[in-house]
Amino acid sequence: MIYDVIIIGSGPAGLAAAIYAQRAKLSTLVLEKEYMSGGQVVNTYEVDNYPGLPGIGGFELGLKFREHAEKFGAQFINKEVRHISLEENGQIKVLYTDQEEYRARTLILAMGARYRKLNVPGEQELAGMGVSYCATCDGAFFKERTVAVVGGGDVAVEDALFLSRGCEKVYLIHRRDELRAAAILQEKLKQCENVEFIWNTEVTAIEGDDHIECLKLRNKESDMETVLDVDGIFIAVGTIPNTGIVTKILQTDTNGYIVAGEDGRTDIPGIFAAGDVRTKQLRQIVTAISDGANAVTSVQAYLNTL
Amino acid sequence: MIYDVIIIGSGPAGLAAAIYAQRAKLSTLVLEKEYMSGGQVVNTYEVDNYPGLPGIGGFELGLKFREHAEKFGAQFINKEVRHISLEENGQIKVLYTDQEEYRARTLILAMGARYRKLNVPGEQELAGMGVSYCATCDGAFFKERTVAVVGGGDVAVEDALFLSRGCEKVYLIHRRDELRAAAILQEKLKQCENVEFIWNTEVTAIEGDDHIECLKLRNKESDMETVLDVDGIFIAVGTIPNTGIVTKILQTDTNGYIVAGEDGRTDIPGIFAAGDVRTKQLRQIVTAISDGANAVTSVQAYLNTL
Repeated sequence: MIYDVIIIGSGPAGLAAAIYAQRAKLSTLVLEKEYMSGGQVVNTYEVDNYPGLPGIGGFELGLKFREHAEKFGAQFINKEVRHISLEENGQIKVLYTDQEEYRARTLILAMGARYRKLNVPGEQELAGMGVSYCATCDGAFFKERTVAVVGGGDVAVEDALFLSRGCEKVYLIHRRDELRAAAILQEKLKQCENVEFIWNTEVTAIEGDDHIECLKLRNKESDMETVLDVDGIFIAVGTIPNTGIVTKILQTDTNGYIVAGEDGRTDIPGIFAAGDVRTKQLRQIVTAISDGANAVTSVQAYLNTL
Repeated sequence: MIYDVIIIGSGPAGLAAAIYAQRAKLSTLVLEKEYMSGGQVVNTYEVDNYPGLPGIGGFELGLKFREHAEKFGAQFINKEVRHISLEENGQIKVLYTDQEEYRARTLILAMGARYRKLNVPGEQELAGMGVSYCATCDGAFFKERTVAVVGGGDVAVEDALFLSRGCEKVYLIHRRDELRAAAILQEKLKQCENVEFIWNTEVTAIEGDDHIECLKLRNKESDMETVLDVDGIFIAVGTIPNTGIVTKILQTDTNGYIVAGEDGRTDIPGIFAAGDVRTKQLRQIVTAISDGANAVTSVQAYLNTL
């Protein structure tokens, strides 16, 4: 069988695409490598910025999205795509898993991205309990609290600026003695009275029981170790798109994201990218579901030309 | 007082912007001319494509969005903006209502759009009871039913193609003897066995009690009147953006939409457009809330440069 569309990944972008594709009566298959749908949302303790469902648990929101797609009869297969090839002048896209192959006229790539980790003790254990990778998502939970941001790029400085408006105190911890971020952002941040810079310093451990209590820091010049009491840590050391299977066939930017605008069109006709995996300004649940719907509109426009 | 951001309109785009702006601790005001928030959603009987809330009533969804924004303390004023002017080299935007004026460093324009009406008897009375202006939104409710599409442009033909996959029978009613839509779409539609064209014909009335039962048609050449039994009518004769207050200061496209990409940036620094009011491929709740979030990100980036 040749599907109208195969969706790879079932985070918010993939599930929104499945909802829209099923409602458009396209023959649709969703391939997901994890046992759970929902993508990064599933590991989020609380989601407070998905309009209409304030304060919902990430796990529950992932389930709701999946159930919504299943309500319309979307078909899911729990397999990881290893390789993609094109047949018939690119009009047929073939996906290979370990033992099977699947064919479609169009693909929606919704494999998501992941945050780069510090890889220090406590980071994984306290994720969602004070350890966050997204100030836009979680910053509002730390109102009038003390937090640290780790990183030196634009995102780290923007996060620190964002947090400085609601938090009592914000530390910016960077392993070098200067920031990479745009000069204008740096100036802005240096004007914030409740922001303190900690230079040449690495986080070596995150400590706490059911909630973060302190960070262990090491100064890279003096090798001196110190302890910093914080209520939260925002790790902004980069993100990594899950694009392993397509980097050889599709155009990506310098950070590895698939080059695609809001309509999801990539440089191969009939292949569309949706959600965190594509080049975009803001990676959030709301922008991911928008991408899923837009990608299906683009799929329909493409199928109408065949 | 000078607000960080004033949002004009409180449909999904404006309310999502309010949620994100409040979470970002920006001083925020929302101006809405209607008594209700929610925009066009409020008049939608059932919304089945907002992920996570399948089958929710439009009125209820509008309320949930508004409550979510209020939870974060967003301030709403129920007034219509009559005029916008710029002060201090454009860095201050001044909004005039009938008796007040409001000042902000940035604006998010989220005034939405409205569907062009046929203006025939029964159209208003049966809206949401068989009369629809959006096949993507409502088509799935008419599975295995008989529907008519009115219009001759790309949207009408795409709607008919979309509906032909789920409905038993689709009539395309057009007042001329040929379509304006792209040739390739027309060819595709002519291949659909369950689609029938009704040329040179106008709908003169929509009839039914609590649900649409039939259309009254008039052939423009013969003047002959006929009755067509249908379960639904999709009116695709265009949309009109609510851009009256900004057409003189901002760039708009030939259909009147504010020219802006997914980041919402218009041709005036510090003024952003979100939702149905801007140029975009797909006008849906999911794309509107994405726009609201993106516009706030753009607002923050702009404020960081001041």
